[in-house]
Amino acid sequence: MKRVKLTIAYDGTNYCGWQIQPNGITIEEVLNRALKKLTGENVLVIGASRTDSGVHALGNVAVFDTETTIPADRIAYALNQKLPEDIVITKSEEVPPTFHPRYCDCSKTYEYHILNTKTPIPTKRLTNYFVSYDLDVDKMRKGASYLVGEHDFVSFCNVRTDVESTVRTVTALDILQNGEEIIIRISGNGFLYNMVRIIVGTLLRVGRGFYEPEKVKEILETKDRKAAGVTAPPHGLFLVEIRYQ
Amino acid sequence: MKRVKLTIAYDGTNYCGWQIQPNGITIEEVLNRALKKLTGENVLVIGASRTDSGVHALGNVAVFDTETTIPADRIAYALNQKLPEDIVITKSEEVPPTFHPRYCDCSKTYEYHILNTKTPIPTKRLTNYFVSYDLDVDKMRKGASYLVGEHDFVSFCNVRTDVESTVRTVTALDILQNGEEIIIRISGNGFLYNMVRIIVGTLLRVGRGFYEPEKVKEILETKDRKAAGVTAPPHGLFLVEIRYQ
Repeated sequence: MKRVKLTIAYDGTNYCGWQIQPNGITIEEVLNRALKKLTGENVLVIGASRTDSGVHALGNVAVFDTETTIPADRIAYALNQKLPEDIVITKSEEVPPTFHPRYCDCSKTYEYHILNTKTPIPTKRLTNYFVSYDLDVDKMRKGASYLVGEHDFVSFCNVRTDVESTVRTVTALDILQNGEEIIIRISGNGFLYNMVRIIVGTLLRVGRGFYEPEKVKEILETKDRKAAGVTAPPHGLFLVEIRYQ
Repeated sequence: MKRVKLTIAYDGTNYCGWQIQPNGITIEEVLNRALKKLTGENVLVIGASRTDSGVHALGNVAVFDTETTIPADRIAYALNQKLPEDIVITKSEEVPPTFHPRYCDCSKTYEYHILNTKTPIPTKRLTNYFVSYDLDVDKMRKGASYLVGEHDFVSFCNVRTDVESTVRTVTALDILQNGEEIIIRISGNGFLYNMVRIIVGTLLRVGRGFYEPEKVKEILETKDRKAAGVTAPPHGLFLVEIRYQ
């Protein structure tokens, strides 16, 4: 028996998110099926990040246990032959049997892609949030600076489950411009439900001039979800990387 | 009666190209239908570039004649309400009744997008040609330099129709790097059938080391389609802009 860690990239457009659910096809389900075809075993993967419907990944992580004789580092290639082209295993490797992708210390990086043009670009409609109004990126950067560090992010969390603590550490929050794309890149030791998308929704209000940058600090201190901006739509969000210590 | 020029962006993934044909839905057909809904007239657009199945556009051009009272510059907005989200009119304007998008002097610009990484990125699979081998971009630039200027491009043309002359002028051919993407950008006064994609296929052979850059000059001089590289796949190709004198 060995435990294998997979690094997974996917286009979330055609999936109801990561986690298996009754009403539609999910990444987790497609992976389990492909692994069954490959190994002959009833494999159940454990995912690191249960991304929402429409959210994309460049480097989500999952593990599974197997008796297969296929070397761990060859599983990526073999599994890709059994997966649809919108899901790609970029790496496979053996890890200790105690490694759990959700209960190990890690740093996650997300990117949120905004297309800031006057008219939408059809080829970017599934991977960028289209925003036609002018954005003041310097003000967005100033607003973002208040979020870096250890804070109680309860104002930036949609109620979902019984999370014990809403304190998280954002280690970096950068706003990059690549031509007509604005990319909000955020790293931290864990994120609350919808936290990245609520931060993006809030920074867009700052960029548009509806909020002063200092308002972001106030929202943090208010500790009230209603104080923050709306949740930005899922299709601009990419889970870029999960780094384990 | 007025003649209206439309500038059109589209994601070509779900279409059998521009031109109406019996076996599948095309951009031209969808435009005609939307214009009928908008104006009540049996409109037939005349397109500038009849892009192939899977090819994308940021700025294709079409004209149509109409009696509508909608001001020409407002048609873009009104028409977008009746179009699917993978086709967007970025501009509409009145032009003289003698303006024909194919028989007027113009400069066209295409881009071909290559994703040059070790593993594919699912979100880029419909807009980038994935190439996993190393590419020598400097050699590709040297090879490309032989194509700039007025030449007989018959070696870079797939036989389709009764084109009178195969002489064309390439005014610029640049190879840009944007992170892990390599973009081949080419402008000229007109292109033969599949010319851009055959140029790309040939420059990829140069980048891979199968051809020396000087071979591109030879291929031009041989005047034989069989001398050039294969036609690169359609999904990496974007018609970026058509500029009329």
